[in-house]
Amino acid sequence: MHGLWIESGAVRFRADLPAPEARDGETRVRVVRAGVCATDLALARGYMDFRGVPGHEFVGIALDGPLAGERVVGEINAACGRCSACANGNERHCPDRTVLGILGRPGAFAEELALPTRNLHRVPEGVSDERAAFAEPLAAAFEIPAQVDLERFGRALVIGDGRLGLLCAQVIARHVPAVHLLGRHPERAGWLPPEIRHVSAMPEGRFPLVVEATGKPHVFQEALGRVEPRGTLVLKTTSEAAAPLDLAPLVVDELTVVGSRCGPFEPALAALADGSIQVDPLLQEVYALEDGPRALEHAARPGTLKIQLEVTRP
Amino acid sequence: MHGLWIESGAVRFRADLPAPEARDGETRVRVVRAGVCATDLALARGYMDFRGVPGHEFVGIALDGPLAGERVVGEINAACGRCSACANGNERHCPDRTVLGILGRPGAFAEELALPTRNLHRVPEGVSDERAAFAEPLAAAFEIPAQVDLERFGRALVIGDGRLGLLCAQVIARHVPAVHLLGRHPERAGWLPPEIRHVSAMPEGRFPLVVEATGKPHVFQEALGRVEPRGTLVLKTTSEAAAPLDLAPLVVDELTVVGSRCGPFEPALAALADGSIQVDPLLQEVYALEDGPRALEHAARPGTLKIQLEVTRP
Repeated sequence: MHGLWIESGAVRFRADLPAPEARDGETRVRVVRAGVCATDLALARGYMDFRGVPGHEFVGIALDGPLAGERVVGEINAACGRCSACANGNERHCPDRTVLGILGRPGAFAEELALPTRNLHRVPEGVSDERAAFAEPLAAAFEIPAQVDLERFGRALVIGDGRLGLLCAQVIARHVPAVHLLGRHPERAGWLPPEIRHVSAMPEGRFPLVVEATGKPHVFQEALGRVEPRGTLVLKTTSEAAAPLDLAPLVVDELTVVGSRCGPFEPALAALADGSIQVDPLLQEVYALEDGPRALEHAARPGTLKIQLEVTRP
Repeated sequence: MHGLWIESGAVRFRADLPAPEARDGETRVRVVRAGVCATDLALARGYMDFRGVPGHEFVGIALDGPLAGERVVGEINAACGRCSACANGNERHCPDRTVLGILGRPGAFAEELALPTRNLHRVPEGVSDERAAFAEPLAAAFEIPAQVDLERFGRALVIGDGRLGLLCAQVIARHVPAVHLLGRHPERAGWLPPEIRHVSAMPEGRFPLVVEATGKPHVFQEALGRVEPRGTLVLKTTSEAAAPLDLAPLVVDELTVVGSRCGPFEPALAALADGSIQVDPLLQEVYALEDGPRALEHAARPGTLKIQLEVTRP
C-alpha cells in the first residue's frame, strides 16, 4: 500500500508498504484524511529513533468488524487489556500499550491502519472528514477539564496560539469566563469567541490557571512565574531535550503542575457535531499522500497551522 | 540583644543587636529554643543576598499582648491582611508578606522576635520546649494532607531520610498504609512505626505518590520516573540553582506535581501533644546561642539531623 515512511530521521513516500494486519479484537480502517501533529515532526527529525509509518490523527472507513462501512476516528493508545493499569481504567497509560504511529503500531499516514475496535468512535453525520480529523487533538484539549476542575477559575492564560493552543483556549472558555491567549499571531483572533482575548505580549499580573501549549522549555519557566500562588499550570506539550529549569517558584508559591496528554473522544466529537468548537480556521492546507514529505516540511515551518493529508479519496 | 547575624554569606554572633519593634497587632516573643533548617544554611551561604537575623523555627514566651506570659510557637509568614490573597485566606502567599528570619523580618536566632499576634499558637502543656521547636517543620509536613487527598493512595515513597523526610513519612503514614522511606541512613529506621519501611536503595516499581524531600534537582528527575501514570509527586524543597530537567515524563504519564511549603500549625501541635508523631529521635545536638556559627556548621554537615539553639534559658 501507499504510505509515508520515517527512517534515520528522514521521511519518504513509499508505494510498497505491507498493509497492517488486524489482530483479535482489532479493526482495519481505510484512512481518508489525516492531520500532521508536532509529534510527527519530532519523529521525522529522529525523536525516539522512530522507524515506521507515522500519523495518529485520522478519519477513515472501517473495513471489517462490527463497524464495517462506518466512518470512524480512533483513540491512539492500544492497551493490553490485562494489566493493572487497564483494570483500573487507565488504558491510555497501559505500560504495554502500542501507540498509533508513535510506538509499535503503524500509523495513519498510509492507506490502511489497524486499531482495537474498542478504540474506534463513529463520526456523527454532518461532521465533515476535514473536521473529523481534528477529533484526536481536540480530545487532547478536552483532557484538561477531565483532569482539572475548571469551574473554580475566573481567568486563565493559554500560552501559544498554535494548533493546540487554539483548541485548548476554546475548550477552557467553555468553563472559564475570561481566557487570555498569548501568541504571535493576532490575525488568528478574529474568529475566536469573545471570551477569548488574544494578546501578543505577556499580560500583566498572574493567573490562577495557565496552560503551556508551546513545548518550549523556557516558556515553561516563564509560565511558572505567571501562575498565582496555589494556582495550576497545565503542561500540554513535551520538549525533546532537557533544559535548565528552576523549580523554586513551584514550591514557594505551592503551584500544581499537571501533565496532560491524550483525552476523551466523546466530548470532542460532540463539540464538532454541534459546532461549539471551531476547527475550520485551523486548517491551513491539504496535501495528497504522495506529497507527504513536502506536507511535513510545510507543517514544520514556524507559524503553520494544521496541515492535512488526503490519504485516500472518500 | 544577643543574636546571630548573616551578612555577605557569613554568620557571626553579635551582642549589639537592637531588639525588634512590635508594630500594631504584633507581639514580642522571648525566644527560648530555635531549630536550624536547611533554609538557614542556604541564607548563610548567601542565598537571596540575605542580611539580618535568620531563624524561623522557635518556641518562646510572649512578652506582651493577649498571650503575655504564654509559651508560644509562630507561623512565619506575616501577611499584610489587606490584599486579595489575604482576603481569600491565602495569607501564607500574601505578596507583601514578610517572612520571619527569611524576608524583611528579623528571625528567631536572637533573644527576641516580633510576629503578628494572630501568627502565634499556644503550646499545649506537656509538650517540651525541644519538641515545640519542631512545630514549624512538622506543620510543613502537615501541608501535604492539606493539599493532597492522601486517603486514595495505597502506597507512597518518600525520598530523603533527613529532617524533613522523617517528618513527612510519619505524617503520610497516618493516611497511607505502606510508606517507603528512601535514604542513606538505615540506622534512623529503628524508631519509625511499622507502616514506614526504610530502604537504602530505590525500590522496584513505581508509586502513586512520591514525596521529594532532598532538595537535589537530579533527585527530582529520578522521582518523576518513579511516579505511576496519573500519580502525584510532592515537592517539599527548593534547590538554589537551575538544573537541566526533562519534563517529558510529566506530560507522557500525566503526572501531577504539587509544590508544598509551610503548613498548618494546629495538627502539628496536636500530634506533638498526643505523641503520635515522634520528633525526639530527630534532635541531634543543642548549642548555646553564642555557639551559633559552630551550630550552623554542624547542621551543614551531610547526614546531620536537627540542630537546635538554646537561645535563652526557659
